[in-house]
Amino acid sequence: MRLLFALSAGGILLAVSGLACAEDDLLTKAKALFQPIPEKVAEVSGKKIDEKQVALGHKLFFDPRLSKSHVFSCNSCHNVGTGGADNLPFSCGHGWENGARNSPTVFNAVFNVAQFWDGRAADLATQARGPIENPVEMGNTAENAVRTLKSIPQYVEEFKESFPKEKDSITLDTITQAIGAYETRLITPDAPFDKYLRGDQNALTVRQKEGLKTFMDANCVMCHNGINVGGQAYFPFGLRKKPEADLLPAGDEGRFEVTKTDTDEYVFRAAPLRNVALTAPYFHSGQVWNLQQTVSIMGDTQLAKTLTDKESAAIVEFLGSLTGRQPEVEYPILPPSTKDTPNPIFD
Amino acid sequence: MRLLFALSAGGILLAVSGLACAEDDLLTKAKALFQPIPEKVAEVSGKKIDEKQVALGHKLFFDPRLSKSHVFSCNSCHNVGTGGADNLPFSCGHGWENGARNSPTVFNAVFNVAQFWDGRAADLATQARGPIENPVEMGNTAENAVRTLKSIPQYVEEFKESFPKEKDSITLDTITQAIGAYETRLITPDAPFDKYLRGDQNALTVRQKEGLKTFMDANCVMCHNGINVGGQAYFPFGLRKKPEADLLPAGDEGRFEVTKTDTDEYVFRAAPLRNVALTAPYFHSGQVWNLQQTVSIMGDTQLAKTLTDKESAAIVEFLGSLTGRQPEVEYPILPPSTKDTPNPIFD
Repeated sequence: MRLLFALSAGGILLAVSGLACAEDDLLTKAKALFQPIPEKVAEVSGKKIDEKQVALGHKLFFDPRLSKSHVFSCNSCHNVGTGGADNLPFSCGHGWENGARNSPTVFNAVFNVAQFWDGRAADLATQARGPIENPVEMGNTAENAVRTLKSIPQYVEEFKESFPKEKDSITLDTITQAIGAYETRLITPDAPFDKYLRGDQNALTVRQKEGLKTFMDANCVMCHNGINVGGQAYFPFGLRKKPEADLLPAGDEGRFEVTKTDTDEYVFRAAPLRNVALTAPYFHSGQVWNLQQTVSIMGDTQLAKTLTDKESAAIVEFLGSLTGRQPEVEYPILPPSTKDTPNPIFD
Repeated sequence: MRLLFALSAGGILLAVSGLACAEDDLLTKAKALFQPIPEKVAEVSGKKIDEKQVALGHKLFFDPRLSKSHVFSCNSCHNVGTGGADNLPFSCGHGWENGARNSPTVFNAVFNVAQFWDGRAADLATQARGPIENPVEMGNTAENAVRTLKSIPQYVEEFKESFPKEKDSITLDTITQAIGAYETRLITPDAPFDKYLRGDQNALTVRQKEGLKTFMDANCVMCHNGINVGGQAYFPFGLRKKPEADLLPAGDEGRFEVTKTDTDEYVFRAAPLRNVALTAPYFHSGQVWNLQQTVSIMGDTQLAKTLTDKESAAIVEFLGSLTGRQPEVEYPILPPSTKDTPNPIFD
């Protein structure tokens, strides 16, 4: 009886030790594939982030006067209170028109290889130009946006201080540089997954670890890796099986429209999955609201793999661990318009 | 020579002393007509403001899911970064439709006798019901707004804690009560004029005091008095002379639509003038962008008085002293939707 007990206890010890090994192994593999979000971004491409530009960009990010109607600000579609996106299939823009693709989150966007679903903007500043001039977004012209800001003395002053080397300190270029500088502050460190990557094995639940293992074993990590668990490279949507037409509308050929290269047909930047639990609906087509269904569709179309309900549910648990500390944002007091400020235009 | 000097110095002393008397007199008159904005509102109509309701209302104020499209929040038209209003002639609402009247500022609204241009809502909570169900504002139904919030566990919890005595804690009534509670925090104390009313005669410039004197002498204070320099009572727009049709469109009969009383035809609540320098364009019809022109029109239509350029400019200087300390607002992190949350509807 005593012997039996001893043997049995030994078995448990072995099992526990095996489990610890497996746990260490999981963490080692994860560390090789992913990196944690840092507490702060001090520089981008070797260029130090300028605090004056950040403060100016903070105002501009919330200023609806960048839009022709004075209705939409950057925050309208990249709402800092709802995961940095707008939780709409397509954003609502000038004239109640809809954008063509689902609005990606601004949070942690600084860590993406490039901006937009098709990567057509190399960096945050370049991205910010798009919506200002897009007729179904802010519907403005660069000329009118510049004229608007130049009519506001406090902005004139702040641009001068933020861009002291520029002869003409308010241009579409400096406007979007300031917005881009501010957006480097919109990052979400300290997600459970970040703590895990830093070595705290208790930061993830058992189910989240199961999900992480499934996520790696099923090869989701082929596309979704790095600091943003995606956002690093381009892949065809429908790598193994063409998605339904509502998910992949024929008219939107993705990166092909940027590169005009046949192999880029229906190619998109792998979605960065940080805070993905907050940013439904999913895909560039914004047609799926349920995250587990989204995971299943990905398995099907990208990996030719029918994930079991248990597997996709576990992956969803893991994805929940990517929700980080949301940025604390003070609502900026915007400098008032003057008699020279162009009036809003509705048309 | 010495005598002459003594006489002359005596004359100066007399003049200075007369000036000081006039200054004291101005302050005494002002104190009789106006009151400063307090640092905090602790209760309304004898009811203590509940801090849990304030915290909940803070989220609701910024939550676009109160609108049918999930595009508009209270803050869309009552932007805390732009004087608590939207600086549009008429707000932009569901389907790119326009509201019928210029959006009044939410700042210090708690001090108005009643809400809306026609005073049809007795208090802030009652006001907040309007836009949610207005087809050209949030375009929602009470039922859908309630269903939306009930689908979000964090809201369910917060409503329970904020309204512990209610059997059904999420109703249009509690939603708007919470928003109303939050709005009592959106006040702007410490304007130069408040400091002046508290006895600091240096808080106003010489020009602002000139403007204050003109404002009182011309009898603007007949309607614009009290803590909000207006907002306390109802008066016909066009008391002495009918305004142009673009300023007073025939189709909008003001308070008559509320009371159906003949004497209320084209009657409106006197505009509260706190932060008025930040809230162009002016009038319920939102057609005048220039504050000095607005002042002239008021003199003309309400007082049958042609103000000189010097007088109207001085009044504008005084009105600038009504810009208070804008509220520090943190952007709230909104609780995420769930599979039960109704999808946004564009139509």
